[in-house]
This record gives sequence, C-alpha cells and structure tokens, in this order.
Amino acid sequence: MTLPPDELRHLRVLRLRPGDRLRVFDGRGQEAEAVLERLDEGGALLRLGEAVQGNRETPQPVTLAVALLKGDKLSDVVRAATELGVARVQLLQTRFSDVPDIGEQKLIRLRRIAAEASKQSRRAVVPEVLAPVPLLQLPLGGQQAFVAHPGSAERLSERLDWSLPVLLVSGPEGGFSDAEVAALTAGGCVGVTLGPRILRAETAPLALLGAIAALGV
Amino acid sequence: MTLPPDELRHLRVLRLRPGDRLRVFDGRGQEAEAVLERLDEGGALLRLGEAVQGNRETPQPVTLAVALLKGDKLSDVVRAATELGVARVQLLQTRFSDVPDIGEQKLIRLRRIAAEASKQSRRAVVPEVLAPVPLLQLPLGGQQAFVAHPGSAERLSERLDWSLPVLLVSGPEGGFSDAEVAALTAGGCVGVTLGPRILRAETAPLALLGAIAALGV
Repeated sequence: MTLPPDELRHLRVLRLRPGDRLRVFDGRGQEAEAVLERLDEGGALLRLGEAVQGNRETPQPVTLAVALLKGDKLSDVVRAATELGVARVQLLQTRFSDVPDIGEQKLIRLRRIAAEASKQSRRAVVPEVLAPVPLLQLPLGGQQAFVAHPGSAERLSERLDWSLPVLLVSGPEGGFSDAEVAALTAGGCVGVTLGPRILRAETAPLALLGAIAALGV
Repeated sequence: MTLPPDELRHLRVLRLRPGDRLRVFDGRGQEAEAVLERLDEGGALLRLGEAVQGNRETPQPVTLAVALLKGDKLSDVVRAATELGVARVQLLQTRFSDVPDIGEQKLIRLRRIAAEASKQSRRAVVPEVLAPVPLLQLPLGGQQAFVAHPGSAERLSERLDWSLPVLLVSGPEGGFSDAEVAALTAGGCVGVTLGPRILRAETAPLALLGAIAALGV
C-alpha cells in the first residue's frame, strides 16, 4: 500500500528507513503489521503483513452526545473521549449553550483530533464526530442512555450492561433546561451520579467515560 | 468577618450589594451562609449565619500522587482532580519524567488553581498540593493504593472499599520504570484496568477519579 501525505510526514519525523516495521490501520477496525519498503520524495511503499485483531474496542459502541462548549474545551473532550474508547461523538445544540453552532473548519479540526488520538491510544478505529443536532432531535431509542445528574443515587457501574449500545449525554456550562431534562427522562435516559460535587461541562463526560473504562472494557 | 483582597475582587465582579446573601468557606470543611453588610474601598464586612454541613467530601481522603508533567498538563489535572474530590495532590519525581522538578512559583500557581476549582465545584475543602518527592520515597502504608495498569484485569470498582484512605498513583508520559513498578507492587499498590487502550498521562488520573466519583462518593 501507499500512504497519504499526512502519514508520510509522520514517517519522516520518525526517521523510519526501509526495512523498519510499523503497524497501520484503516480507521474502521482493520489493523496490520507492515514493513517499510521505500520512502522517498514520491511517497512511501509498505508491504502489508498479517492482519492483527486490535480488540481495543468496547463490546458495544459508546456514543458521547456532548453540548457545544466554548474555546478549546470540545477539542479536549474529543481527544480524551477517543482515548477512553468512544465510537462516536455527537455534538449537541442546547438551550443554555453559549455556542450556538460550529463552523465546518472547527468540525474538520475535531475530526483530525479524533484521528490523531486514535493513533496515540493504539485504537484501530477512529470515532466519528457528527455535526451538531438540537438535543430535542437526538434519537434515544434502541440504546442505554445515561446523563450525569447531581441528585441521582443511581450508579453507572450498576446500571450498565453490554446488551445494547451506550449513549452518554453531557450538557453545556449552563446545564440543561427543564424541558431538555424532561425530554431526556421521557426518552428513557437514566440520570446517574458523579458524586456530590459540581463538575465543569468538560470534566463530566470524561468522568462518565473513565467510569466505563475502569469496568475493564 | 472581613474578606481577603482576592475574594473582595470577586464580590465586585459579581456586583454584590449590601443585603445580598452568599456562602463562604474556610478551606478546611467549614461552610456558612452569610449576608453582605458593607462593601467599599476599605473592604467587605459579612455577617455570618448558620454553619452548613457541606458533605461534598469522600468517606476517606483520596490522594492523587501524580508524576510531574509538561506544560499546562499539571494544571489541568489539579483542576479536574479537585472537582472530582481529591483531598491531596502529591507531586512525584519519576525516572522517565521529562520534567525534573517544578519551581516555587509553579507550585503556588497549582495551589491557586486547587482553591479556585474547590470554589467552582462547591467544595468547602481545598486540596493540598504537595511539593514533589521521588516516587521511591512515597509512603504506601496504611492506605489502599492503586495504579492504572494496562495488563490488569482487576477493577477499581470491585477493589475499592472505604475502610482506609485511598492513594491513586499516576505516571509520567514515559511510564514508570521497571524498578518503580516493582517498588509500587512490593508496597502493596494494586494495578487496576482502565481498559485496553493507551491513555495519556493527563487522562489516566482523571479516568481513575471519574470511576471513583461514579461510585457515588
């Protein structure tokens, strides 16, 4: 196989030479050993070896639906969520979000961050990052949906099973509106505790994902 | 009571006026309702009301012992760890850390971040941030010690009980040396899983703390 320009730069930075071994993946779960055959101005040629079963994915896909956040916070969330195993990040427009929408460039940047974080965490799958939808249009059916809720006594570790895909819903700095909470509850989304402290909007989703990761999946 | 200059600025930013109610805490677990009596050039005078039991602390103190990290990563870790309920952050010097030590100014800055994050997460306790010690001098006895370990099948949620204080040990970008791992193991530190993916040094401690927070404490 030949490599795209981005990855070519990466090989040069790593100062790889013909004969060096590396591992490649296609972003959809396929992973293989490879040997660098040639690296020059024109490109890189790799000889693919045996396919490797990465097995770094969760038993069912985990989607993080997260409200638009200010500044670089979304980048930080996408990066850490990718390391922690999400299959998909669905951006959300919510009532009290300070950021009404994001542009195409920012979305492309978030996708690049997800690809980079996949590589660094040795995942063979790159999570999708989906353009924002209004929270009230988020489909909740056919999956186990959870939202962090300060008042709840329900524990994620006790409610989570892997018979269905998992959806984690995470709000903006200003929290969800009463109508949004009502819609989530009506859709079967379970409020779970993250302890009695107030978490920032960028910390809560990582705490939920950390709790799932600590269950060994 | 009167307020220190920092908090005075805060009241001005919030545009509080005499008669407004607020909540104050002393950083050691005491919290009280208060009414602003006077706010002028000279300072602020508060009338203290009833003491409030904050009850936002974990059943036993949780210490995060974390290796020195590059750039702003330590700040991010201290901020999120404070929200997630740590009682103490013990900085560590480790074999493969890129940062050999931190200066007094940086330590003061980390303590300020802990104080600020306590306030924002509505905790009445400010975690201590302790100057770096070599990992091999970290006392492990008299507590339950855990370290994230990629190969482990042990789950934090199954091992954690609250009969003893908790110590979480977290390494640098380059990981722990074999000698460091051996010392931790010999000291009774239990390796627990955070799933089959590779986490960055700044993500792993938050995943561990997120897992504890999701247990409802």
